[in-house]
Amino acid sequence: MVVLGDKMKKIRNTISNIGILNEEAMKAAKKRQDFLTKPKESLGILEDLSIKVAGITGNVLPKIRNKVIITMVGDHGVVEEGVSAYPQEVTSQMVYNFIGGGAGINVLARHAGARLVLVDMGVATDLKPHPKLINKKIAYGTKNMARGPAMTYEQAIESIEAGIDIVKEQLEKGIDIIGIGEMGIGNTTTASAIIAAITSEPAERIVGRGTGIGDKTLRNKIEVIKKALEVNKPDLNDPIDVLAKVGGFEIGGLVGVILESAANRIPIVLDGFEPGAAALIATELEPKVKNFLIAPICSREPGDKITLKKLGLVPFLNLKLNLGEGTGAVLGISIVEAGVKILTEMATFAEAGVAEAIKK
Amino acid sequence: MVVLGDKMKKIRNTISNIGILNEEAMKAAKKRQDFLTKPKESLGILEDLSIKVAGITGNVLPKIRNKVIITMVGDHGVVEEGVSAYPQEVTSQMVYNFIGGGAGINVLARHAGARLVLVDMGVATDLKPHPKLINKKIAYGTKNMARGPAMTYEQAIESIEAGIDIVKEQLEKGIDIIGIGEMGIGNTTTASAIIAAITSEPAERIVGRGTGIGDKTLRNKIEVIKKALEVNKPDLNDPIDVLAKVGGFEIGGLVGVILESAANRIPIVLDGFEPGAAALIATELEPKVKNFLIAPICSREPGDKITLKKLGLVPFLNLKLNLGEGTGAVLGISIVEAGVKILTEMATFAEAGVAEAIKK
Repeated sequence: MVVLGDKMKKIRNTISNIGILNEEAMKAAKKRQDFLTKPKESLGILEDLSIKVAGITGNVLPKIRNKVIITMVGDHGVVEEGVSAYPQEVTSQMVYNFIGGGAGINVLARHAGARLVLVDMGVATDLKPHPKLINKKIAYGTKNMARGPAMTYEQAIESIEAGIDIVKEQLEKGIDIIGIGEMGIGNTTTASAIIAAITSEPAERIVGRGTGIGDKTLRNKIEVIKKALEVNKPDLNDPIDVLAKVGGFEIGGLVGVILESAANRIPIVLDGFEPGAAALIATELEPKVKNFLIAPICSREPGDKITLKKLGLVPFLNLKLNLGEGTGAVLGISIVEAGVKILTEMATFAEAGVAEAIKK
Repeated sequence: MVVLGDKMKKIRNTISNIGILNEEAMKAAKKRQDFLTKPKESLGILEDLSIKVAGITGNVLPKIRNKVIITMVGDHGVVEEGVSAYPQEVTSQMVYNFIGGGAGINVLARHAGARLVLVDMGVATDLKPHPKLINKKIAYGTKNMARGPAMTYEQAIESIEAGIDIVKEQLEKGIDIIGIGEMGIGNTTTASAIIAAITSEPAERIVGRGTGIGDKTLRNKIEVIKKALEVNKPDLNDPIDVLAKVGGFEIGGLVGVILESAANRIPIVLDGFEPGAAALIATELEPKVKNFLIAPICSREPGDKITLKKLGLVPFLNLKLNLGEGTGAVLGISIVEAGVKILTEMATFAEAGVAEAIKK
């Protein structure tokens, strides 16, 4: 575990509350699954997910009432290197689209009955205040990491603390499962740099086409990431330094969300590439975080496969999603909920008067 | 296309109404997907599914209001050969579990907001009448296919007609998408024989452990299937003869459901092994049926992969399900619905005032 200094009292406090899976609850949940009116293990991953949720929550019959998606938004100075297919103003335009209910995550959150929590972690312009938008702006976008650190070390801490605060605030409204999403033009470049740093894989194996860049922009993006890592030399023994040097405010915010959710024994559902990068930083800060993570999808960015392998997570929705915003997370939450309902609502052989398998 | 005789007027009539996908609706749906506020194709399979539903329904903005799961139940004389891990009485016991709401499909249908339609196609005992159970019993279970035909040719026709009637009856209550499921001790043996006959693959490559049989029973199951095919020599040019010789009443019923749903341009969502066998028979009767099929899962029975390949379908939920009943279908329906909502509810770039991608 990383030793955190005095300036990081809040983060240290959250991390100290992160525990391990409740083995007893998991054993009891597995036993119950085997007594339900179906052949043993015939509901595969649905059963596994229900057992994991039992271990996370410590409840053999968990309830999923409040499904929450936290979508964090931020801008990235590195866009001035020409790494994205979209102009930077799309970040703020998409915030208004989220508020208006017309984005992909709005549609899918409604479909799954999830509460969408929208956070400005560092959009480059002032956004009109709105009851649906939480303002945790650290700065007007990060600085260009190809020329120096994306943010100061203090800003990295602040962004994580903001994520911790968001979860604390939302806990009052109820959270039984949390999905994390993000939006921010340039943030696959940022996430790629974090993943390359933490996994020590070459940028070429990590970087993908993000929102749909061509070959030339892809080659440039790889060079920019390499340059960012050379210029900044992030300290691989200090995940907060990695976040500060080549990260983003929304990714820092997600790190805080992950840590505080784990501390509260809430299942955390990832959503592809950037949430994966945030999960890498969070697990570097405290490896026990891994126990609380669920990854429904692997995004089309090549580095996501490497990230999930390092996190020991196996995706179960092969939907070829690459949007972010929390779209894969919210579909995953619906599957986790289905698994939990199997555990809690199905009849046992004894209850239903159904004969069990003959041993042979 | 198979030439059907006079006795098959109802089936012939249904088949004559099966059309092709509406290319114009699909083109318009694809165009709309490309104008929605997301990078092109970033919602992968969700987009593909929505375009397919547009093609099936002929509606560029389809609505999925009535989600229906039809679960058909039947018994199989072949169980006297010792091919299953469960005794035959489990079939009728499970019917009462379905009626009581305690089975896996009950839980997942409630989760997805789907209407469950339960049909006795040929359970071996008399079942207590119940408003939730539709009686289309053809006979008290099939005969043992290892010693002769599972049913008469007339019974095979009757079972398909019963499936056609079920869809016609349910149409009055509304159906926008249909998932098909089954239950019946011994029916992976039956489905394996059908798949082996139609795909000309050896039984060893088709047969799996069903509800969880051991090695010895598995070897026996393979031998029984080989014997059933040798004894009966189903006419591979007549899919109804295949159904009669080595099929089951619930599989025949599902063939009828598939045909009548396709005739009404309703998307049909399969659920692994036995529904796959029914889909093979239906597509042998009329190849255009393929246009209307969606396969969310591949079951753990080895023959399912072979079936889906022959049907040209690619599953998208990697949940390792092996229960049947419609459980995989209903989770798939929820994903199809999500895709359709993306198509119909998301804002376009113009509507949301979001800038489009820069060409480079």
